Amino acid sequence: MPLTFRRATAEDLPALVALLADDMLGAAREDLGPPLPAAYALAFETIAADANQLLVVAEEEGAPGGAPVGTMQLTFLPGLSRQGAWRCQIEAVRIAAPERGRGLGRQMIAFAVEEARARGCAHVQLTSHNDRKDAHRFYAGLGFEQSHIGYKLIL
Amino acid sequence: MPLTFRRATAEDLPALVALLADDMLGAAREDLGPPLPAAYALAFETIAADANQLLVVAEEEGAPGGAPVGTMQLTFLPGLSRQGAWRCQIEAVRIAAPERGRGLGRQMIAFAVEEARARGCAHVQLTSHNDRKDAHRFYAGLGFEQSHIGYKLIL
Repeated sequence: MPLTFRRATAEDLPALVALLADDMLGAAREDLGPPLPAAYALAFETIAADANQLLVVAEEEGAPGGAPVGTMQLTFLPGLSRQGAWRCQIEAVRIAAPERGRGLGRQMIAFAVEEARARGCAHVQLTSHNDRKDAHRFYAGLGFEQSHIGYKLIL
Repeated sequence: MPLTFRRATAEDLPALVALLADDMLGAAREDLGPPLPAAYALAFETIAADANQLLVVAEEEGAPGGAPVGTMQLTFLPGLSRQGAWRCQIEAVRIAAPERGRGLGRQMIAFAVEEARARGCAHVQLTSHNDRKDAHRFYAGLGFEQSHIGYKLIL
């Protein structure tokens, strides 16, 4: 089923947080309420106001008004490196549990790559938690090179 | 020797590009000119105009007017994940070759962590190329968790 992609609106927020929480790592990190903590709305407004952020909602064609089947956040990063190249970073990729394994992720990443090209990015980058073995196979299968180690320091 | 840190200015650009190029991976990616390709100045302006970007110059105290001894780019990223948490991303970390091995990197990362805390970030994240074995020991020694795999797709 082909997906359509659009920029998220404030009305999508509960569904997007539900997608973030419906995940082996996200389940312990999010708070669905109700009420949904105000921090989500504040973060949404910050993202929406930033021209270098694109919070994406994926929907199935022919199912308007239905819940989003996927989401991801694209960030377009300026930098001096590589002769002033822009990079596209993908974070917070989620597909609704009942829709997994149907090739929707491939369509989502293809959309991200298309957006990155349209904005003149030199590469697309992302990190995937060590425990997401299925995701590692998925990204390798799409031609991503496993070139880096990703570090985090919790504050 | 204690470092001082400040936001980069356009006058720093040639020195910063020279630092980026003085690196096992950066050497093949950058073009020092002269003239310095205009793409660097354009990238610098974009970074400088973005409140969520902080291009850092590190200098040795007592050596004003000297060349920068280090640089890094901090990006402050809004997101819905983790209840709308901000993240601080570190990229393009360089220390001048003659100054390496003296503990300056530790001061630079400490500054990044301080900035991240001041802006309310929940964590600091970075990736390091698989081949940078010294860097891996360095970040692990600073308490960074090697929790992710970093992928890149060159466009």
